[in-house]
Amino acid sequence: MTKDPLVIFTPSGKRGNFAVGTPVLTAARQLGVDLDSVCGGRGICSKCQITPAFGEFPKHGLTVSENALSEWNSVEERYKSKRHLIEGRRLGCQATIQEDVVIDVPAESQVHKQVVRKRAEARDITLNPSTKLYYVEVQEPDMHDPSGDLERLVSALRTEWNLPHLEADLGILTTMQPILRKGEWKVTCAVHLGDDMFSPRIMHIWPGFYEGTIYGLAVDLGSTTIAGHLCDLQTGEVVASSGIMNPQIRFGEDLMSRVSYSMMNEGGAAEMTRAVREGMNALFVQVASEAQIDRDLIVDAVFVCNPVMHHLFLGIDPFELGQAPFALATSDSISIRAMELGLNLHPAARVYLLPCIAGHVGADAAAVALSESPNTSEDLVLVVDVGTNAEILLGNKEKVLACSSPTGPAFEGAQISSGQRAAPGAIERVKIDPVTKEPKFRVIGSDIWSDQDGFAESIVSSGITGICGSGIIEMVAEMRIAGIVDGPGLIGSPEQTGTDRCFLDGRTYSFMVHDGSATGEATITVTNRDIREIQMAKAALYSGARLLMDKFEVDTVDRVVLAGAFGAHISPLHAMVLGMIPDCQLDKVTSAGNAAGTGARIALLNSKARREIENTVREIHKIETAIEPRFQEHFVNASAIPNSVEAFPILATHVTLPDVNFNQGSGNDEDGGGRRRRRRRG
Amino acid sequence: MTKDPLVIFTPSGKRGNFAVGTPVLTAARQLGVDLDSVCGGRGICSKCQITPAFGEFPKHGLTVSENALSEWNSVEERYKSKRHLIEGRRLGCQATIQEDVVIDVPAESQVHKQVVRKRAEARDITLNPSTKLYYVEVQEPDMHDPSGDLERLVSALRTEWNLPHLEADLGILTTMQPILRKGEWKVTCAVHLGDDMFSPRIMHIWPGFYEGTIYGLAVDLGSTTIAGHLCDLQTGEVVASSGIMNPQIRFGEDLMSRVSYSMMNEGGAAEMTRAVREGMNALFVQVASEAQIDRDLIVDAVFVCNPVMHHLFLGIDPFELGQAPFALATSDSISIRAMELGLNLHPAARVYLLPCIAGHVGADAAAVALSESPNTSEDLVLVVDVGTNAEILLGNKEKVLACSSPTGPAFEGAQISSGQRAAPGAIERVKIDPVTKEPKFRVIGSDIWSDQDGFAESIVSSGITGICGSGIIEMVAEMRIAGIVDGPGLIGSPEQTGTDRCFLDGRTYSFMVHDGSATGEATITVTNRDIREIQMAKAALYSGARLLMDKFEVDTVDRVVLAGAFGAHISPLHAMVLGMIPDCQLDKVTSAGNAAGTGARIALLNSKARREIENTVREIHKIETAIEPRFQEHFVNASAIPNSVEAFPILATHVTLPDVNFNQGSGNDEDGGGRRRRRRRG
Repeated sequence: MTKDPLVIFTPSGKRGNFAVGTPVLTAARQLGVDLDSVCGGRGICSKCQITPAFGEFPKHGLTVSENALSEWNSVEERYKSKRHLIEGRRLGCQATIQEDVVIDVPAESQVHKQVVRKRAEARDITLNPSTKLYYVEVQEPDMHDPSGDLERLVSALRTEWNLPHLEADLGILTTMQPILRKGEWKVTCAVHLGDDMFSPRIMHIWPGFYEGTIYGLAVDLGSTTIAGHLCDLQTGEVVASSGIMNPQIRFGEDLMSRVSYSMMNEGGAAEMTRAVREGMNALFVQVASEAQIDRDLIVDAVFVCNPVMHHLFLGIDPFELGQAPFALATSDSISIRAMELGLNLHPAARVYLLPCIAGHVGADAAAVALSESPNTSEDLVLVVDVGTNAEILLGNKEKVLACSSPTGPAFEGAQISSGQRAAPGAIERVKIDPVTKEPKFRVIGSDIWSDQDGFAESIVSSGITGICGSGIIEMVAEMRIAGIVDGPGLIGSPEQTGTDRCFLDGRTYSFMVHDGSATGEATITVTNRDIREIQMAKAALYSGARLLMDKFEVDTVDRVVLAGAFGAHISPLHAMVLGMIPDCQLDKVTSAGNAAGTGARIALLNSKARREIENTVREIHKIETAIEPRFQEHFVNASAIPNSVEAFPILATHVTLPDVNFNQGSGNDEDGGGRRRRRRRG
Repeated sequence: MTKDPLVIFTPSGKRGNFAVGTPVLTAARQLGVDLDSVCGGRGICSKCQITPAFGEFPKHGLTVSENALSEWNSVEERYKSKRHLIEGRRLGCQATIQEDVVIDVPAESQVHKQVVRKRAEARDITLNPSTKLYYVEVQEPDMHDPSGDLERLVSALRTEWNLPHLEADLGILTTMQPILRKGEWKVTCAVHLGDDMFSPRIMHIWPGFYEGTIYGLAVDLGSTTIAGHLCDLQTGEVVASSGIMNPQIRFGEDLMSRVSYSMMNEGGAAEMTRAVREGMNALFVQVASEAQIDRDLIVDAVFVCNPVMHHLFLGIDPFELGQAPFALATSDSISIRAMELGLNLHPAARVYLLPCIAGHVGADAAAVALSESPNTSEDLVLVVDVGTNAEILLGNKEKVLACSSPTGPAFEGAQISSGQRAAPGAIERVKIDPVTKEPKFRVIGSDIWSDQDGFAESIVSSGITGICGSGIIEMVAEMRIAGIVDGPGLIGSPEQTGTDRCFLDGRTYSFMVHDGSATGEATITVTNRDIREIQMAKAALYSGARLLMDKFEVDTVDRVVLAGAFGAHISPLHAMVLGMIPDCQLDKVTSAGNAAGTGARIALLNSKARREIENTVREIHKIETAIEPRFQEHFVNASAIPNSVEAFPILATHVTLPDVNFNQGSGNDEDGGGRRRRRRRG
């Protein structure tokens, strides 16, 4: 008796002997090789494409002949002529094994394919969505053995795909019968594979083989903006991204003012819930239209947001989040029907909200943890999501700590006299000559510095309108480096600084950045109150990080990750000069971009990641800054720029900070400097 | 060391030794004695009332002294003064064990108490509802260990009551926080303990200890009427029963005409779905008002209905049920949120529909099977639910067969010339003197026979308006016994019958029951066409039963159960003379009343019974009459009155049927007698 041919699959390396005539798909399944199929080997879906390799394989001691697989057949020919099959590819369900063979499974034929993330340091996402497509042939009804159409459909899915017992929403029950008959008892089903809250269920049925795909939406629900990323659940690709302003803004710019609105106005919370859900539906229309798909094809959605948005989105009055002990209504993840939240997606669509970490550390922070996974880091990483509230994570694979810190909106350009949102016309980069004290800057929308030729032309459409969040950080840091601001945060007089750009503005000095009075443009200054706002914000951020470092019993961290859209634009050097973040090797300070949004996308594309982050969040040590005396101590000590030179030895190798002190002992320290303390949330 | 006191519980007989000072409730729990408690032993709910017995117990070799339990305490005193405690009763959570004691747990203190059914032959219902009340004390929020209010509530329920992990609907999340605070972290929860479709979940929260109860509704959704029975889920008692006409009647009296309506009218099925749901909501208002409770306290509902009503109620077009192979959309039981069906009960209320047996044998038949449990019967029982369609079950503990038979509406008085619904004025009982051929009758609303004194006065308010379903059966049977109708179903001429009450009416003879022309009352006759209608109906019913007997390979059954409101009024003798049911000892023919409604009530009060009937239905052998050649054969043979004398040996001992034949060979057998065959559904 001759031995059955040997089949080796690459890249998995899985191998086995199979009888002559065994389809490649069958062999792959038996070996547990990750080879996709929607039609179950019926030559319809073409998901099981494979590439046989011929020739010598000395490593395996094999010679593979051209006859190792069965001949190209009519099904493959039809598929190739109707659509497209890359040269050398075969359909795994059609090609059968004839002799020893090496078979490569290309990435796009793998079920659990990797979705490649752009950043080098980021892990790729393994595709494993909650909802998948299955093609089945259903037994026709038989009066001799009566059973419901649904029961026969479920039985076919169980038998052909080894799926567990599936439920069906009412929407399936009411539409299924004509679809089964239209497809002549052949249908494609979208099946939600179940989670803690939902048993596995049929989400949708198409007659015959469904050629299209299904979509999921990852939503970063921020206080200011709502961003949605539409993903193809079969490929993992982002097919459209869209954003809108959070319509709740009309009830208050920051979260605390929205909480107040709900406290002061009967039905205020419900009003804000309605607003955010309406906004959400507008976003769905927008993103579906961008991708040119039907909204009904969106079967899954993941939301990340801070606790106040989380509660308002779910329709929970955020009242308790406005006062100690900041009790969340629920901290666990939420899995719910989109319909229950009034969201217009597929009628059976499911919505998943990541768990909240604590009353001030929301599902957005959980999403950052999922994206940046400090819990698997070998070195000690500080992850800072800079927004109106800063969420701070510190940890490594041993332990992760989390807190939030009330930075206030200064980092977003609010409460700054010339501040504005990041938009064309806003100053985003600043450089001040330490000798002449002359500032130069760059404006969003232009690549040209203000002292270069062509600058004026390049900004004709926007003009110079203000300073955005990252601009104000660079501005204050540059003012400190240039000796215009002293360590305690006072702007010096023209005499003290040697520049007329400093001018008395009430009882303190301001710094003239751009005098637009002659040209009719905006005049942009930095006031001493602006410096104070930035000091407050950065002290809050730094104190939070310091507090976690105390709890971790460390004095330094190995690396710092700046998350958030804003974090992407911060210059590490300037952030450190300001004393926003602890001292760290500059090349170890990186930006993770919109890590919360990425976390949402991971949870969308890989349902196992949901269980993972739920477990991680349970393990995270939550630190409530409001009740930590050390936080207040750190806060007081952190208002100077930078906090203290000893704390920044690495920074000292990059930059020298002039040892100036502009306090004339008079009353010009109007607002009490580091002694003033406020608590802001939102 | 003295031995711990011995505690014996009655009626369970469970016993054990417990340390002095052990509360009786604790002892009961440890022994698994069925002793209720909602407050968990905090002396609030008084559900754990017990009766200690004192004196000599020779059977147990015990003498119980008056000091066997601790002294009457202040909690008990307070409870007794505020409410009421029967003399001799103690609270099981307050009274502690001091010496050997015998303790009786009265029926109302048992969790799984028996709900007594009125009929002697019926099993009692063990109370085990889907939703129960639990009182808990919840840990307050703590900033040092942040977790959601829900998570702490769920954890308290798990710890104090040993409940599994509970989910919460959105309605709980959005209302829970103020309730927890109002109750000072003590709340009572209604908890749905879960089923195949729903994981266990919190349905409702009340601040503090909730003094009230929760309700469930058992609904018998018939083609003509909808009846609801409101039950207290804590006691199992029916607190209100109400009924309305099915508003779908305007789309067609019988089911088949409703199926046709949906086929002929775009959106017709949706229109009928709306109608039945609106009717349902009207019923809820009515039944809640009758019981003087808030509809929101109804947390569970069970529905039984035939397949067409089942589909229309769920919003499924019944199209497929109107044609072979009569494919149900789904045959399994359905568990769904009331809200999804647009039903106004508690917002989180769950609805359960019993499984359907086959395309023509619905959840109503399943409910009859649950109520009458032929599957546990020692002897062979034929259960017939007589309605527009007759559902027929035949079986014993070995095997159960089921079919439905299209009897048509004749048994309900429809399609009968003088027929009407059972209502005051309708003839319901008939007797015809075999010698004089003079009929006498009784009318609904009066106890006096028409030939007795006082009859005219007793019917003044209603008059004599027609013949109801049970009346027409007696009428035809009596006509046969009196020799006015022959075996093949022809009414004889005055000459043949010897009475002028027979008169030529077109081409056949009719029988004058009541001549109202002189007094202005209705004139009531039985036409030969009426006889034909009854023959068709009874032949369909009998053939169904016979078919099942063939399949069971038996010629006789041990007993017959007539289910359905109509079945309660049928005289067994007359039913047998007519040949509706197989020959059987007359005292073995019983009525089960509204067995479908009872089945609904069982499934409502005992969630385990739901699993039981689901399993039973899976085991039932379904016979489709439409494709059984034997059914047609039986049908043809069953049109005579009775079918054949040989088939009714027991009947022959009770009654002699005149051997007459009125066929004169002329054309007066207008409509072809037994040779005419129709198929009717609905």
